[in-house]
Amino acid sequence: MDQDKISLAHGSGGKLSQELIEEVIYPAFNKNSGNQLLDGAILENKNEKLVMTTDSFVISPIFFPGGDIGKLAVCGTVNDLAVSGAEPAYLSVGFIIEAGFPMEYLKQIVESIAKTALSAKVKIVTGDTKVVETGSADGIFINTTGVGFAGNREYSPSKMEPGDFIIVTGTLGDHGMTILSLREELGLESNLKSDCAPLNHMLSELWKADINIKCMRDPTRGGVATTINELAQQGQVGVKLFEEKLPVRKDVAAGCSLLGLDPVYMANEGKALIVVKENDGAKAIDVLKKNKLGSNSEIIGQVVAKDRGKVTLETSLGIERILTALEGEHLPRIC
Amino acid sequence: MDQDKISLAHGSGGKLSQELIEEVIYPAFNKNSGNQLLDGAILENKNEKLVMTTDSFVISPIFFPGGDIGKLAVCGTVNDLAVSGAEPAYLSVGFIIEAGFPMEYLKQIVESIAKTALSAKVKIVTGDTKVVETGSADGIFINTTGVGFAGNREYSPSKMEPGDFIIVTGTLGDHGMTILSLREELGLESNLKSDCAPLNHMLSELWKADINIKCMRDPTRGGVATTINELAQQGQVGVKLFEEKLPVRKDVAAGCSLLGLDPVYMANEGKALIVVKENDGAKAIDVLKKNKLGSNSEIIGQVVAKDRGKVTLETSLGIERILTALEGEHLPRIC
Repeated sequence: MDQDKISLAHGSGGKLSQELIEEVIYPAFNKNSGNQLLDGAILENKNEKLVMTTDSFVISPIFFPGGDIGKLAVCGTVNDLAVSGAEPAYLSVGFIIEAGFPMEYLKQIVESIAKTALSAKVKIVTGDTKVVETGSADGIFINTTGVGFAGNREYSPSKMEPGDFIIVTGTLGDHGMTILSLREELGLESNLKSDCAPLNHMLSELWKADINIKCMRDPTRGGVATTINELAQQGQVGVKLFEEKLPVRKDVAAGCSLLGLDPVYMANEGKALIVVKENDGAKAIDVLKKNKLGSNSEIIGQVVAKDRGKVTLETSLGIERILTALEGEHLPRIC
Repeated sequence: MDQDKISLAHGSGGKLSQELIEEVIYPAFNKNSGNQLLDGAILENKNEKLVMTTDSFVISPIFFPGGDIGKLAVCGTVNDLAVSGAEPAYLSVGFIIEAGFPMEYLKQIVESIAKTALSAKVKIVTGDTKVVETGSADGIFINTTGVGFAGNREYSPSKMEPGDFIIVTGTLGDHGMTILSLREELGLESNLKSDCAPLNHMLSELWKADINIKCMRDPTRGGVATTINELAQQGQVGVKLFEEKLPVRKDVAAGCSLLGLDPVYMANEGKALIVVKENDGAKAIDVLKKNKLGSNSEIIGQVVAKDRGKVTLETSLGIERILTALEGEHLPRIC
């Protein structure tokens, strides 16, 4: 591609579209898909439950410490599949690009998608590129949709029962605080980076180790507090969280303190919340800690019989308060 | 939802997001999915080839004679699956919405998606909603990704051989001219409307009738000329089209003539190009014409041994000329 900027013609379906696909997109994605990208990709099936999930990514800025919109778009969908009990197999990638977007940025993003997909062992099998006029979008938006196979695993909040432990696989709010710090120019991101990572291999170790898993979620928008509230409501159980067990990096805590925010509401892009049967709690932590991405895993709470549908936070002083889901808008375009 | 406009908080992942999903999106989509929409939808699998396809829709304007962006988003992906030989089974829907977008429009679009999915017998199983600031998108963009089952069918341009007939299932350029006329205020759209329609049921009649199908495509962006050029290149065959056989509505022809455009490059959203073995040509036309959507089906060309990778158009005067793929940008945001 000689052009240094994306133009409307790159989305026309005509010759320039074809060139963009053949010269920029195919070469990167084919490395890991191993076959031609078609409008309709024909895929090998397995005799297992299918799982399907979709996410659009509109993050701003598109490049940030620890990742970019391309890495995020792969991790987000891979993680949604993984917390559903599936082994991610196939991804589609749909770009909506603003005319005038630098070709160099697109190439970087495409490389990042390819690299992340390779590390997650998921194949990019089909895609689409649309271009809109300058001013009709903000740079680039990416949709990824994933398909995976879940064997006979079926996780559900309805399986939660009093005594079950709530595990988080690492520190809270790294992604949210990184993006916020960049936008507010707090300067914290020199040390801080997004936790954006594909969790599928680590999470599969849990079911391979026969851990009794009730359900899993990835606490992205709205953070851990919002996600656990959803679990409590959907499972119609109470959840008690222990404040002193919540793992939070010092710089994230400092940034939150500065801005009057709470890390429990900050977005994560490389963490899972896992609910396991009480007597499997310690074993699950052992399995998770063997993986670099889970080295800060903690049991942070427990399912309780009282306060159905609600989440309470027990502070280090032993005081309990209700922890609600995020209300209103916390931080737009965090993913 | 009391709010009459979409706000950033509707995309926050918090309470307003949940309300939007539970009050506006679930009620419409659940009618046809029959189960809860989850981040990761667990689906019934079949022991058949899987097909996956994705498309983002950025059409402007979002409402037009014959459809809207919602109907288009379902038809586009359903048709991509159908021309790959698959029976569409599952759809994901991802919205990117500009803050300030009227809630009423979103409700109409969601209803339209639900209704079209129901008529195509495809289930909407998972979704995502993102909201960006006013000015960071133009109204609404929709990604749909589809999964279908293809039995043992496998269509490919590599199966094309001299003698095969090229069929189009109806008039050329209805969608493209409708949108163009709206934008240019030509006033033609009072009679004209987009051909936007799900073709899966009609196309499945072909394989049920044991027609020897080589390959199929839906000639959307770039029109019939661009799509047949792709087939000729991918199959490394020549294709001859007969100009007088190309079905074109009079008002589309008039609009094209007025604007100096050619219907062969105009987008279609409810038409398929089908390549069949020569001796199945007449039978295929019979099958197609039994369906209302295929009543104007025509054999418009034939695969030839010469001019590999190229498409020639034979005019009514017997003159042949090369018909190239669309170059540059014809009409942005046509789908």
